[in-house]
Amino acid sequence: MSRRSPAGSEPVSEAAARRLSIYLRGLQQLEADGLRTISSHDFARRFHLNSAQIRKDLAMFGEFGIRGVGYDVASLRNHLAGLLGIDEEKNVILCGAGNLGQALAGYGGFNSAGFRVVALFDVDPAKIGTSLRGGLPVLESAAMPAFLVKTRVDIGVIAVPAESAQKTTDALVAGGVRAILNFAPVRLRAPERIFVKNVDLKIQLETLSFYLRNS
Amino acid sequence: MSRRSPAGSEPVSEAAARRLSIYLRGLQQLEADGLRTISSHDFARRFHLNSAQIRKDLAMFGEFGIRGVGYDVASLRNHLAGLLGIDEEKNVILCGAGNLGQALAGYGGFNSAGFRVVALFDVDPAKIGTSLRGGLPVLESAAMPAFLVKTRVDIGVIAVPAESAQKTTDALVAGGVRAILNFAPVRLRAPERIFVKNVDLKIQLETLSFYLRNS
Repeated sequence: MSRRSPAGSEPVSEAAARRLSIYLRGLQQLEADGLRTISSHDFARRFHLNSAQIRKDLAMFGEFGIRGVGYDVASLRNHLAGLLGIDEEKNVILCGAGNLGQALAGYGGFNSAGFRVVALFDVDPAKIGTSLRGGLPVLESAAMPAFLVKTRVDIGVIAVPAESAQKTTDALVAGGVRAILNFAPVRLRAPERIFVKNVDLKIQLETLSFYLRNS
Repeated sequence: MSRRSPAGSEPVSEAAARRLSIYLRGLQQLEADGLRTISSHDFARRFHLNSAQIRKDLAMFGEFGIRGVGYDVASLRNHLAGLLGIDEEKNVILCGAGNLGQALAGYGGFNSAGFRVVALFDVDPAKIGTSLRGGLPVLESAAMPAFLVKTRVDIGVIAVPAESAQKTTDALVAGGVRAILNFAPVRLRAPERIFVKNVDLKIQLETLSFYLRNS
């Protein structure tokens, strides 16, 4: 999560945060299915997780299980949402309104429970001043510093070409954005206090390739 | 990795495959930097990984380290590439040539070392018959079965709207594609022998949110 992290590296704490998010997704599913309690064992089996790991992860943050009953689905879901900070809405901006930026703008997960995309930024005159479906504005990249002064932005998503990624990062940092999700295939320099998460989609392909080879 | 896996769940073996991919990325970086050997300790420190985990993961697949020296970077990189099956090129098709499909077509990782995107498929008459930059053809979705008969496709990427995802999956499975990377926010039904990996980008945002909350 620091500026020295390569794409895809997972320090222990980042892996744990990732697991909390996976647990939350499972709990939401259970709630939708009408389940009120579940044991760590059943939870693990249902979602192909490790029950000892679940107990260990949750124990870091308090005592949630009830002996002989398991976890209360709704209360654990609430608690995890709080731990993940998604009980308060986070404002997200998408830097880059090309195919990737527009795909992310339309991606359900980027505009639901806990997150709200407030604007896209681009340098293309043909895009600046337009709105995407849903009314999301595409603003001029040069206007980002002024935008960041008047609007609280929690997370900046880098969806610009590699050669513009550092300049965009610098503008986000200067504007007070503390967390950056980077889709550009380049290592970004940012102060230690800024959380930079690099997305490396090739890891997903390689995982599939591993299974094809080893099955 | 099975049809019962929810988005983002990681059975132990999938997590291990993911880590091999992360180690490979680190080794490629070290090689680019001119390093010839590295200890598990230094490797872990440099990429924010866990050295005991590295030794354990690699021990599953043989004996790589040299006592007192560490790992030979080039030979371990070669070996991991073999384990991940990317020493042989895998053909990839992108189902859906919308913003996401086009973004993935242009994404370096989907068209480099080990992977080759051979075609996109779409239902939009305005797109069918065109080519993307680089000459990649956009073909008619209805022509996919015939395409799969004559071209070996290892991985199908689902980048269609949620409501078309199952139909697309069925066509891939019928055409002999064994691995599916699913970007649609829907759980796909597929036979047990098919590897389905669901991409849940919201997990990335939630990890950042966790850090913002807990820092």
